[in-house]
Amino acid sequence: MSSVADQLPSANDTYVANFGEKGSLALPPSKKVAIVTCMDARIDPAAALGLPEGSAHIIRNAGGRAADALRSLIISQQLLGTREVLVVHHTDCGMLTFTDAEIRDKLNHPDANHIAFLPFTDLERSVHEDVDYIKRSVLLVPRFKITGWIYDVKTGKVEQVV
Amino acid sequence: MSSVADQLPSANDTYVANFGEKGSLALPPSKKVAIVTCMDARIDPAAALGLPEGSAHIIRNAGGRAADALRSLIISQQLLGTREVLVVHHTDCGMLTFTDAEIRDKLNHPDANHIAFLPFTDLERSVHEDVDYIKRSVLLVPRFKITGWIYDVKTGKVEQVV
Repeated sequence: MSSVADQLPSANDTYVANFGEKGSLALPPSKKVAIVTCMDARIDPAAALGLPEGSAHIIRNAGGRAADALRSLIISQQLLGTREVLVVHHTDCGMLTFTDAEIRDKLNHPDANHIAFLPFTDLERSVHEDVDYIKRSVLLVPRFKITGWIYDVKTGKVEQVV
Repeated sequence: MSSVADQLPSANDTYVANFGEKGSLALPPSKKVAIVTCMDARIDPAAALGLPEGSAHIIRNAGGRAADALRSLIISQQLLGTREVLVVHHTDCGMLTFTDAEIRDKLNHPDANHIAFLPFTDLERSVHEDVDYIKRSVLLVPRFKITGWIYDVKTGKVEQVV
């Protein structure tokens, strides 16, 4: 199988040919919003949430966990002016399939014991936890809107839970 | 201005109506690749790199920094089978515009002193640093392909630097 790196220049040429006016977009997100969601391959947040280029910071990590997104959210709000956060977790998430003990056992290396892998056992509760984590941060701005959502990978539907 | 949360259900309805066959995609990325890139609003990694839904883990944070992506990369490789990493930083990045001292001064809270905000002063060097950081990790699999790239926000062009 050829690598993604090998295929990238040709795929990128097509994007560049249709780039249009996007070169004039400003650095700060026009909708003043940051999305925190999972790295999952099945999710296209821009398409699913209706956020075209230039409109939103999109922060993605395994699970869409808030603890891993905090540095980025501080920069997003304090330096780039966003005032809304959406936490979007999803059905069939890999983070529902293991525990810290299991992955540490698999890795079998002392360094793994210092990492919180942030799996969860209840999807809806994980959204509540991460919304609460972000609300509690003393390093974010005093007032901003925050909501929590679950994306269904079988249908593309997003439903609000917080 | 109405919030993104208010507008989301109607934008998502359009996505759901055109969801097609994507509900049958598998959890592990079909191209066995993880992308590490910036949260910047102007970047649509799936479109720019030619990665449709189902093909790639997409990890995004302020700057596309490796240190913040490590937990996600471990899960991506060790539990979900990816064997390639692309680090993609970009021109006009917000991380080129401040220092840790400046943001800590602005935040003016002791908790900020415990956070490395990971800004950089040289874009190409930042890609090399993050590729090296990922290569050095003892918690990733023994062999995988890794490359480093710079995305030009004015043209949409991606150029390989590592």
